Amino acid sequence: MSELDRTTVGNVGVVTPQTLHFAEPLTLANGRTLPFYDIAYETYGQLNADASNAVLICHALSGHHHVAGFHPHEDPATAKPGWWDVAIGPGKVIDTNRFFVVATNNLGGCHGSTGPASINPETDKPYGPDFPIVAVRDWVKVQGYVADMLGIKRWAAVVGGSLGGMQVLRWSIDYPDRIANAVVIASAPKLSAQNIAFNEVARQAILRDPKYHGGHFYEHDEVPEVGLTLARMVGHITYLSDDAMREKFGRVLRSDGYRYGFDAEFQVESYLRYQGESFSKRFDANTYLLMTRVLDYFDPARDYDHDLAKTFAKATCRFLVMSFSTDWRFSPERSREIVDALVRADKEVSYAEIDAPQGHDAFLLDNPRYLAIFGAYMRRIADQLEAHHAA
Amino acid sequence: MSELDRTTVGNVGVVTPQTLHFAEPLTLANGRTLPFYDIAYETYGQLNADASNAVLICHALSGHHHVAGFHPHEDPATAKPGWWDVAIGPGKVIDTNRFFVVATNNLGGCHGSTGPASINPETDKPYGPDFPIVAVRDWVKVQGYVADMLGIKRWAAVVGGSLGGMQVLRWSIDYPDRIANAVVIASAPKLSAQNIAFNEVARQAILRDPKYHGGHFYEHDEVPEVGLTLARMVGHITYLSDDAMREKFGRVLRSDGYRYGFDAEFQVESYLRYQGESFSKRFDANTYLLMTRVLDYFDPARDYDHDLAKTFAKATCRFLVMSFSTDWRFSPERSREIVDALVRADKEVSYAEIDAPQGHDAFLLDNPRYLAIFGAYMRRIADQLEAHHAA
Repeated sequence: MSELDRTTVGNVGVVTPQTLHFAEPLTLANGRTLPFYDIAYETYGQLNADASNAVLICHALSGHHHVAGFHPHEDPATAKPGWWDVAIGPGKVIDTNRFFVVATNNLGGCHGSTGPASINPETDKPYGPDFPIVAVRDWVKVQGYVADMLGIKRWAAVVGGSLGGMQVLRWSIDYPDRIANAVVIASAPKLSAQNIAFNEVARQAILRDPKYHGGHFYEHDEVPEVGLTLARMVGHITYLSDDAMREKFGRVLRSDGYRYGFDAEFQVESYLRYQGESFSKRFDANTYLLMTRVLDYFDPARDYDHDLAKTFAKATCRFLVMSFSTDWRFSPERSREIVDALVRADKEVSYAEIDAPQGHDAFLLDNPRYLAIFGAYMRRIADQLEAHHAA
Repeated sequence: MSELDRTTVGNVGVVTPQTLHFAEPLTLANGRTLPFYDIAYETYGQLNADASNAVLICHALSGHHHVAGFHPHEDPATAKPGWWDVAIGPGKVIDTNRFFVVATNNLGGCHGSTGPASINPETDKPYGPDFPIVAVRDWVKVQGYVADMLGIKRWAAVVGGSLGGMQVLRWSIDYPDRIANAVVIASAPKLSAQNIAFNEVARQAILRDPKYHGGHFYEHDEVPEVGLTLARMVGHITYLSDDAMREKFGRVLRSDGYRYGFDAEFQVESYLRYQGESFSKRFDANTYLLMTRVLDYFDPARDYDHDLAKTFAKATCRFLVMSFSTDWRFSPERSREIVDALVRADKEVSYAEIDAPQGHDAFLLDNPRYLAIFGAYMRRIADQLEAHHAA
């Protein structure tokens, strides 16, 4: 990390999540309206005088607004920090000594923002399956309202991986005046049939779990744990590369020999079960369904004759696009589709394909070349901002 | 097919499945014993005088002994023929005018051979989860007994794709004197961690389905349809390539626009659901569990210091190994592991990597280059047999 070591590389420390309440109705892309809603968010660093140093972090399927640091009740010695702590903090890639970082929990989430588990004012019961299916463009619109509340007219950068990257693309298309830089990591311009197919398996696992109760499980005091466990297991396989699984687990057994049964015998089995079960205890099933549908539906070129270059025509920001060699969920090819379209649309774009064995998960991990390229890009933004102020 | 058109390329016609009853106890690889068992099988063509023209077909996970032609109650005008009819019949790749073809339903299956749904003589109830987990080596041993009953000392060829190819490998290792040619298609010397992980998702879907009843669902007059449906859906994704799914479904919707719900909207969703649901109505859940475990456990090099070349040391047959470019379940790399080991072991091996867009499923489909290479290999075997007889 020596290249990034401008000051002291560290952690943002203890962060208290905030909530913004929006009392105005929100009309969604699907035509429905939410009468009011809350958005949970966190910020790190200080907004500068002209509010030009703000960076928005967009989260992926199972993410949230807790991106870096620790929560007040947590012990930093034992707790895991926020999900992108590797990239965000003092002296890190997104340097909180220079940038003011904002992260929201997207609408429909289950970490403090209004979502399916929230009370539906029309029924005084949780929305459950009646929560409207939102779209990436709704999230981005709401992130814009959050920016308004925080006094941010234009983001220095909007940054995200996977589904987060789709939000970044949407920002560049829908609000070209409000985004200076777009950092799109391990993402895709739309899901492939195979991507949708994996989402559909996850959805069917949840929808067909008897404990899902048609989405009204809250009222039955049950959780479709089996469905969520299976959904996460299948998802998890797609986050890891074949190579990463070989490296991490191979065919290693948990005991000396075959036991000829269906208990977890191979280490990869117990790992997956653990991942699935722990996820099922902390994530809302309706939110999972909703997030997978947001992914399926994202296809900005639909409004532009399915021409991705035309889709980006009005974008004015600079783009950094990054992908990972062994990512088969959103392969480098999918990132190159974005890059090719941006080039055809005559936009300023840098592209880096990072050699990384970990598959899709690589965007969350400490990979020196990835963090160096990402860090250099962010450092240039900060340098320009500071040069502008000094001038 | 002109190259193959020696006589008239056709269908084997109506075939009546047979059953062999074995009254002697069978000791299995896991140490357990089956007191007696039935094996369902079909044959096509005529065994020649010295029983030298017999070809054994080994089936994959969800396959069975009905490989070609139609069953007596079926209407050939509307019924689907056996699962490998594209390759087996008069004038076809495995020419039933020249070869005597034998196909069994493996032990533990659900198409007529003794399996989990059969009555356990110790309890007078279906075996259910108490049916022993068999191994590829058990199947091969039993196929040997079938050969004995049919008067076949040595197979002209043993042929199989996927899990079927693993049985072929096991034949070459365990019974080198009884196999003249081994045809191993779209297979692997052992599963990878990713392969096991997908199997584990399928198993957990079944095992955690409340209607599985710990495997005793027969007595509850229920079937774990949800679990089997999910298992097949996830399996099916791995049989198709990303490209094949793009080609076949893309992002095509079933109606005009997004409906913002969880009904099947994309064609790939309704296709997968249909595949899963129809499979759940025709396949036994305990057999599915067992077959996936047979796959997981297969690793013949375990007995030979994990040295695959050493594993093949005693093999005497010729090998034809084939793989398909877009197969990501058992990729060409996995076939090359087999080929490399055979070369190191100084065995006679031909290898063909076929350009095919369909993924793993390609081994079941009509691909001209695949069938030409496969057919040429089989034709040489038949030519040599006939030359030997003429001499």
